[in-house]
Amino acid sequence: MTIITLTTDFGLKDGYVGVVKGVILGICPPVRVIDISHFIAPQNVLEAALTLGRTARFFPPGTVHVAVVDPGVGTIRRPIAARIGEQYFIGPDNGIFSVVLKQADEQGARYDFIHLDNPAYWLKEVSNVFHGRDIFAPCAAHLAAGVPFEQLGSAMEDPIRLRIPEPRQTAQGWAGEVLHVDSFGNLATNITAEMIGMSKNMKVRIGGAVIQGIVRAYGERQSGELVALEDSAGLLSIAVVNGSAAQRLKATLGTPVEITYS
Amino acid sequence: MTIITLTTDFGLKDGYVGVVKGVILGICPPVRVIDISHFIAPQNVLEAALTLGRTARFFPPGTVHVAVVDPGVGTIRRPIAARIGEQYFIGPDNGIFSVVLKQADEQGARYDFIHLDNPAYWLKEVSNVFHGRDIFAPCAAHLAAGVPFEQLGSAMEDPIRLRIPEPRQTAQGWAGEVLHVDSFGNLATNITAEMIGMSKNMKVRIGGAVIQGIVRAYGERQSGELVALEDSAGLLSIAVVNGSAAQRLKATLGTPVEITYS
Amino acid sequence: MTIITLTTDFGLKDGYVGVVKGVILGICPPVRVIDISHFIAPQNVLEAALTLGRTARFFPPGTVHVAVVDPGVGTIRRPIAARIGEQYFIGPDNGIFSVVLKQADEQGARYDFIHLDNPAYWLKEVSNVFHGRDIFAPCAAHLAAGVPFEQLGSAMEDPIRLRIPEPRQTAQGWAGEVLHVDSFGNLATNITAEMIGMSKNMKVRIGGAVIQGIVRAYGERQSGELVALEDSAGLLSIAVVNGSAAQRLKATLGTPVEITYS
Repeated sequence: MTIITLTTDFGLKDGYVGVVKGVILGICPPVRVIDISHFIAPQNVLEAALTLGRTARFFPPGTVHVAVVDPGVGTIRRPIAARIGEQYFIGPDNGIFSVVLKQADEQGARYDFIHLDNPAYWLKEVSNVFHGRDIFAPCAAHLAAGVPFEQLGSAMEDPIRLRIPEPRQTAQGWAGEVLHVDSFGNLATNITAEMIGMSKNMKVRIGGAVIQGIVRAYGERQSGELVALEDSAGLLSIAVVNGSAAQRLKATLGTPVEITYS
Repeated sequence: MTIITLTTDFGLKDGYVGVVKGVILGICPPVRVIDISHFIAPQNVLEAALTLGRTARFFPPGTVHVAVVDPGVGTIRRPIAARIGEQYFIGPDNGIFSVVLKQADEQGARYDFIHLDNPAYWLKEVSNVFHGRDIFAPCAAHLAAGVPFEQLGSAMEDPIRLRIPEPRQTAQGWAGEVLHVDSFGNLATNITAEMIGMSKNMKVRIGGAVIQGIVRAYGERQSGELVALEDSAGLLSIAVVNGSAAQRLKATLGTPVEITYS
Repeated sequence: MTIITLTTDFGLKDGYVGVVKGVILGICPPVRVIDISHFIAPQNVLEAALTLGRTARFFPPGTVHVAVVDPGVGTIRRPIAARIGEQYFIGPDNGIFSVVLKQADEQGARYDFIHLDNPAYWLKEVSNVFHGRDIFAPCAAHLAAGVPFEQLGSAMEDPIRLRIPEPRQTAQGWAGEVLHVDSFGNLATNITAEMIGMSKNMKVRIGGAVIQGIVRAYGERQSGELVALEDSAGLLSIAVVNGSAAQRLKATLGTPVEITYS
């Protein structure tokens, strides 16, 4: 029983996600379709790439991840599929798989790519504005139904990759930035806990605040306190206990974060 | 393996949708339940009808579509089921199936109706405020489980139909209106691309703006440009590239749109 | 075919819910995962408890309800499982099952508890911030896959219980409060219809308004009228026909409600 996941900027109001699922289940009835997120900010390909980077590895081998944040739909940008390790990824060639590819590079996992240019696996009518429905969903469903990866189109190389902001070492420690603001207002950075060693002597500077309270869990401090901790992805994260660090610090994607050890 | 879809104004906060799914799966465990939308504006039956009109046809034959936007729940308005072509529709008799019925008329598809007056297929206790849970969900589940359509109640005719705003021809072209504002802020009109022929000479007037830039895909123009194009439902749609036409034009449902060819 | 439900404060933006489902399906592929709500207010354990109290009973026997509103994650608060009647509940020991336990007490249903201290049923790496993914989801999936309840950890007693606001009798009638504001703006109180007897002579006072119009269904009154009625959970509810009572009355959780019979 294969799983197809969906990561899009469609929202849940208009029925676009329902239509994608209808197309998938029409082609491959037994597949399980799981939503990762439909609230990627409109056209924000990097956010979708980071979301897949946080989530894809928790799905079993054989999972087909469909990602559709696609401002170039209907232009020359290619529809593609990637096989990365034991999972599959389907979406536009706009960098949306950059983070999972970087993770694969770091882990020495293999990958290869297909240009989805075989219309046998598309819907019969293909619009210029909704390839999620017309190309990506049907290709994913056919793949889940057993069509070999190689048959979905021509082999290709070098899909587009986005620059993913990297932290850098400084004289006193590290400089990074916020890469994810979650719905709690927690601020995940691009600095890993492993990189910096989470120590009591460490100071975290962000948005004018200085945090000395490195903690293991939110509940170690009082409600309303600003803390830094290792989040569930192994990243340095800034939070307000039972509150929103994003609101408190007026922080957002790209807000700089500095670590010092003095 | 049958599919039941859900289209409601319940939102996702309160657990109403979860309860409907619990009732369905208790009666028909193998059915697949797919959300079309739970963010129809409260009590907006026309919006639900239009949403079904855009989405139902992408589901396979045998699908049971449950639609619950139901301000008349508990009054004399009837609970009904419709068989339209090869799909089923279940909900209140308030016009919520008007658009799929109009499409059926245009395509010469057959349909017939049942008044859901057989309490054998309801929950044992029926409230006056939540027929989605007490009547529509169980009837849909029993239908998906193999109960013949005719057994759900008495045959009936002439369910309520809403007036669906139609475009009209003018001396210079066409006059229509916005029928759908999606979460991107794209404005879908009631004017089909087929009706008007999408040509370079065409002008689209809406909210004080004049659009000459008819395009095939969003990516043909620069970010921030106002464009008109054929959307994924074959309708004339107005969009801002990587932005929101609804915001830019302060347009909403019912905003007039004019097409001229001069 | 077992059902696992999810009730959390995760929201749907960040992929946390998707990850939980990926973990579940990796362990127990055939299970059906149903969302009850992911829009519990952050850290609001009582709201989650009340939501389960309204919804759990509509799921079939054998259902495993996972509830994760968990400000104490990573501290000494225990991860627990409860067997209540014929259903299972998994989450933090912070009172999140208080309402279903109270219902069990009222109905004389049996229950017992397990401290989820058997790491054989957790993910291999357990974070201090996301037990939903690392402990609760895998335990629920193993339970759904057939692992005996008793094997998930050590028997325990007396999980934490929250005080659930109760109505009280007054000289003239009853005094209670709003316990649920739904997305329509309907105000459900902690006063049951059975308790008060819904009569024409009854007056409901809330937020400065006096309602004499006790009705059976919304549609019995005109749009915009303030009404009181029995809601789908058997509770006294205050609503504005085709509008929002929460907005009209500026009411929220805890707003007092008085019933008099004069």
